[in-house]
Amino acid sequence: MIDKKNTSKASISKVRSFRKKTVSTDSYINGILKNDKTTLGKAITLIESSNAEHIEKAKIIIEKCLSKKNNSIRIGITGVPGVGKSTFIDALGKRLTSSGKKVAVLAVDPTSSLSKGSILGDKTRMQELAKDPNAFIRPSPSGESLGGVGRKTRETIILCEAAGYDIILIETVGVGQSETVVHSMVDFFLLLKLAGAGDELQGIKRGIIEMADAIVINKADNDNIKQSKLAQIEFESALHLYPPKKNGWTPKVLLASALNKEGIDDVWKMIGQYIILCKQNGYFLENRKKQNEYWFAQTIDDQLKQEFYQNKSVKKMMVEMLQEVHENKISPFSAAEKLLSLSKNELK
Amino acid sequence: MIDKKNTSKASISKVRSFRKKTVSTDSYINGILKNDKTTLGKAITLIESSNAEHIEKAKIIIEKCLSKKNNSIRIGITGVPGVGKSTFIDALGKRLTSSGKKVAVLAVDPTSSLSKGSILGDKTRMQELAKDPNAFIRPSPSGESLGGVGRKTRETIILCEAAGYDIILIETVGVGQSETVVHSMVDFFLLLKLAGAGDELQGIKRGIIEMADAIVINKADNDNIKQSKLAQIEFESALHLYPPKKNGWTPKVLLASALNKEGIDDVWKMIGQYIILCKQNGYFLENRKKQNEYWFAQTIDDQLKQEFYQNKSVKKMMVEMLQEVHENKISPFSAAEKLLSLSKNELK
Repeated sequence: MIDKKNTSKASISKVRSFRKKTVSTDSYINGILKNDKTTLGKAITLIESSNAEHIEKAKIIIEKCLSKKNNSIRIGITGVPGVGKSTFIDALGKRLTSSGKKVAVLAVDPTSSLSKGSILGDKTRMQELAKDPNAFIRPSPSGESLGGVGRKTRETIILCEAAGYDIILIETVGVGQSETVVHSMVDFFLLLKLAGAGDELQGIKRGIIEMADAIVINKADNDNIKQSKLAQIEFESALHLYPPKKNGWTPKVLLASALNKEGIDDVWKMIGQYIILCKQNGYFLENRKKQNEYWFAQTIDDQLKQEFYQNKSVKKMMVEMLQEVHENKISPFSAAEKLLSLSKNELK
Repeated sequence: MIDKKNTSKASISKVRSFRKKTVSTDSYINGILKNDKTTLGKAITLIESSNAEHIEKAKIIIEKCLSKKNNSIRIGITGVPGVGKSTFIDALGKRLTSSGKKVAVLAVDPTSSLSKGSILGDKTRMQELAKDPNAFIRPSPSGESLGGVGRKTRETIILCEAAGYDIILIETVGVGQSETVVHSMVDFFLLLKLAGAGDELQGIKRGIIEMADAIVINKADNDNIKQSKLAQIEFESALHLYPPKKNGWTPKVLLASALNKEGIDDVWKMIGQYIILCKQNGYFLENRKKQNEYWFAQTIDDQLKQEFYQNKSVKKMMVEMLQEVHENKISPFSAAEKLLSLSKNELK
């Protein structure tokens, strides 16, 4: 029997829109689970959208995909432009698909909204992998903030894993804090380098050596071999200066020539050793748990700040307060508290 | 003529308490400006108090003191226990007071509430300086959070400068992020080290070398001189690996024996050179401005988080949400958003 109350127009439209949404997200989820690349791509577009309805849909899809466990390995790859990241990922990716793995390649590039796909925008940069049915390549999401870009990429990982991709390669160009963001979402972090004219450590980005589980010196071929071997020694002694890692892993320095497909096997073997070690000593799951906690706290932090700084009264007073702080007319603490009470009054 | 409305008991008591407070904070301020150490000490106790009335008083005092400019130099000093921080500060402080400077010694020690004055708690550790009429020594404030301890110390600096202290030495034992906190409130940051058995860099705290404007190798006396000189060379080459500082300063490595009062003059001369350089190129004021902005943003961030995490509904749901995140039943993003909407509903 139909309850009369529920036959009002509003209710019907509610039911309809609910049905529409349910069907729709279900078909997304089914497509993803069947590893339909087109559906996967469209679902990622929902994640990247700023449209409220899309965001709502994306959330449902993500939560459903979350329960589809797989034994994925997430690998972060960083290096300055010109180091050969695309060629390296192309070679490593092909190596993996040829042994039956399914590989997804994502990117975190906070500049992508400005430069329109400075990395991975063009799939031709990974020519072989782009044609591979067992590979899925997705350029970096664009976004106002690195936090936003990072979040979207992390949600995309969930979808890719539900679609059955067992190796997730995440490339970053290393602008600002983007390496830290990628480091906080991967199991293994790899730094690509080139051998230069000695003094390899000079000018290397601060903090990056501490994050690296391995340094791979690329383009170690032809005339470059001697210099690459010297760079290898220098990096090994630099790594020696850091305290041992909690997981018991000693970071390695390897040589490779992605162009000639040399050394790629060794890189993959090394990652395998790392994963075995970390799964045996419990670090693998512990680290993923910690990363989830990090993203949980980070999301709270980001949203709290975003709401505060977008509050109209706060925006209005901000310039004035900063001016007074600069002129020592008010302490930074009192200025902050004034703005905080402003934002609170507005909510009341 | 007296308005009848204002003769009510409540109003009278309001006026009285206002007068009482005004008189009281004024007498604090006058005492501080006359450099009455007892009053200064009592005012700092107000800063350190968690009593609402004290906090209110402290705020008024701080804001009044803020306008009393002086040409202070704020110096951060860090080093592991046993490196001789107290002896070094004692020697440097005496060197400064003997040339007419007024020296305040503060500390940031996040463990002080647990260990009850692990550093500076005992003024006998700086025997000579403690007796000096031109020196003021204050142990670390205790507190739940490093942020809280840092804030109190920063507010104490304002009071000390208003009292006419022109050199502020801030000691830290370097637990957790305490060095970063101290670094963000000083003009010059000094790392004290001992020469060990070679491989000086091994085990040095991450990030600290980047912060240091100078490394002083203490206890460079007697049998230790040779080793200290070797350590000096190793640190110099390590510093060389870092990109140059924005302010154009090249960090120095000096030798000292605080016990024998050797090398102290050189340390002070070097700090003087640094200050001249940074005042000439504008970095000095620019840095203080940046530090104020940092503390402004930091206070906002801390308070937003504190309010959120102390929200009763949030507290209640937090454990459950984290559990679900750990079990992959919910994404960290959705879990965060659930809690955020909870806290918002409560405010409405």
